[in-house]
Amino acid sequence: MTSFSDLPIRDDLRGKSPYGAPQAPVPVALNVNENTHPIPDDVVADIVQSVAVALRGANRYPDREFGELRASLAGYLGHGLDASNIWAANGSNEVLQQILQAFGGPGRSALGFAPTYSMYPLLASGTGTAWIAADRGPDFVVTPEHAARVVREHRPDVVILCAPNNPTGTPLGLDVVEAVYDASQGVVIVDEAYHEFMPEDAPSAITLLPGRERLIVSRTMSKAFAFAGVRLGYLAADPAVADALRLVRLPYHLSVLTQAAAIAALRHSDEMLATVHDIVAQRDRISERLGELGYDVHASGSNFVLFGGVSDPHATFLALRERGILVRDVGIANHLRVSAGTEAETTVFLDAMAELAASGRR
Amino acid sequence: MTSFSDLPIRDDLRGKSPYGAPQAPVPVALNVNENTHPIPDDVVADIVQSVAVALRGANRYPDREFGELRASLAGYLGHGLDASNIWAANGSNEVLQQILQAFGGPGRSALGFAPTYSMYPLLASGTGTAWIAADRGPDFVVTPEHAARVVREHRPDVVILCAPNNPTGTPLGLDVVEAVYDASQGVVIVDEAYHEFMPEDAPSAITLLPGRERLIVSRTMSKAFAFAGVRLGYLAADPAVADALRLVRLPYHLSVLTQAAAIAALRHSDEMLATVHDIVAQRDRISERLGELGYDVHASGSNFVLFGGVSDPHATFLALRERGILVRDVGIANHLRVSAGTEAETTVFLDAMAELAASGRR
Repeated sequence: MTSFSDLPIRDDLRGKSPYGAPQAPVPVALNVNENTHPIPDDVVADIVQSVAVALRGANRYPDREFGELRASLAGYLGHGLDASNIWAANGSNEVLQQILQAFGGPGRSALGFAPTYSMYPLLASGTGTAWIAADRGPDFVVTPEHAARVVREHRPDVVILCAPNNPTGTPLGLDVVEAVYDASQGVVIVDEAYHEFMPEDAPSAITLLPGRERLIVSRTMSKAFAFAGVRLGYLAADPAVADALRLVRLPYHLSVLTQAAAIAALRHSDEMLATVHDIVAQRDRISERLGELGYDVHASGSNFVLFGGVSDPHATFLALRERGILVRDVGIANHLRVSAGTEAETTVFLDAMAELAASGRR
Repeated sequence: MTSFSDLPIRDDLRGKSPYGAPQAPVPVALNVNENTHPIPDDVVADIVQSVAVALRGANRYPDREFGELRASLAGYLGHGLDASNIWAANGSNEVLQQILQAFGGPGRSALGFAPTYSMYPLLASGTGTAWIAADRGPDFVVTPEHAARVVREHRPDVVILCAPNNPTGTPLGLDVVEAVYDASQGVVIVDEAYHEFMPEDAPSAITLLPGRERLIVSRTMSKAFAFAGVRLGYLAADPAVADALRLVRLPYHLSVLTQAAAIAALRHSDEMLATVHDIVAQRDRISERLGELGYDVHASGSNFVLFGGVSDPHATFLALRERGILVRDVGIANHLRVSAGTEAETTVFLDAMAELAASGRR
């Protein structure tokens, strides 16, 4: 049998393994920070109706400019944004890939503060962009002074700030964004994939956009909107950013189905976001209970919790999987990450953790 | 106002313009080789039902391996292929982009026979792959001898053969594929986007796959399947090719909606393809009538016709657009390209051409 290494593949891909969180069906999957609440029935019904209409014209290419979707996203974000400030793609991974194609690429570099979202270095590598992993301070916090110093030292073409940070959950102050922007000549991306899970009065980096044409705030419908399966990531920025990305995006990259489904869901944003309070409550419950059980819980502004003090993460991962629960070993020593599920899912997880702790398997 | 050139964009993108066929709504749009027949009502109904089911799980990430879709595509292609031979992405542009990311890229080259599909050089540029435009013989035909000679001379890492060729419509003999494969050490892509419009007894390059692990045959559901809006391109190849592409694809690149819609449509492939005969009949009618009007018509195995002998293509383009008809100026001197529409659309186009010819505006 032919292996891919027998093919004339690029040398830098030889021996690599694909990105792969397990997709085995388990009763309680809390490993990829999904929103475990299904889309409400009435919203499904409205999306289905919109998709049915879209299919009647699906023999034609989609609107390459997805103007209606961009206007809907601008309306959702508010802050005086309009369609010209918005760009979107099939998941925020594709949004980030397009940004790296336009502003990174061969001979250029992108910088992030590790540990951070594991796709950043993969997206950099896929676009030929050098990846610089800077470090974080105690408890994974990034300070404005440290961030600005690192950026001045490395002069990256792209900086990616994950706010709150995946996989640690750490919130990021807007003062860090301002300091990085001022220290940088390149593009500064604030990845707010989990922003909706922050306290309601926590300001978005969107408030910093006016007068900062190199600042890009990326978002996703995957998490708070329970739309991971539909693949819709987007950004807010100066209209010139959309003009730049139009040069690298594949024409017609957003299908009529994606456009129709996202527009319909955004009509119901209040209802779609209703689960956010539940999820935040379950997240806080996880943090509190794991703390009581003696784990080192990291502060989280997202829909997941990173906890340390796990003596053997792989053993705990396996013990939980035996009980039908999937969590994530994110490669930080003595740590595991768990997504906040529904109340019932969270109970199953916390009971299992209590049982493990009681039997001395921590 | 900030222009994208004021941003720290890559130098090779400065001054470029995005891909852009006009998307102004006109009564008779025959400019982007779409299938102008809508998807049949009963197929739409079945797709809608499948999408409704998929939406119930759309809070979760899609099946990253899209196993059911790959099996459905293998079943449609036949030739003893199974799911492991198939890969798919959001349009064949994304399939080709992934192939270039894995087998092309910086320091590598891709070769095609121009004039050919205008996205090939753009995809090469977007992945940092050098693009080599070889020429064609009389009437745009590529012979095995010429192709093998060119490939031996340039030693490209990737060869793209468009069969039949866009924008000329020219069929390609399998002897050319064999000769190019034997002359090459790299990956050979046969882009069969328009294959379903070839005579029924015309063999596909899929028949050449056994024993040729560097050969890739790409297809799309955009044309014969009237599915341009859904964005589903795919390929058949040795399973090692899918293993290679898994290293460069973005995880979860195919949404649950795309997967569900394509699987449902493939259940109705006979009905979806029923329009192919009509389209071929209209294509042949266009060729015959334009010939009678004195244009130089090129042989076509696709759903469009390239014709020469146009004294001023831009003037003819505008005269047609005034009449609500959109055709394509593909940049070949004294030529225009027209997609075969429904019988009514084709009549409107041919009547307009006759009128222009009668008034001496040819």
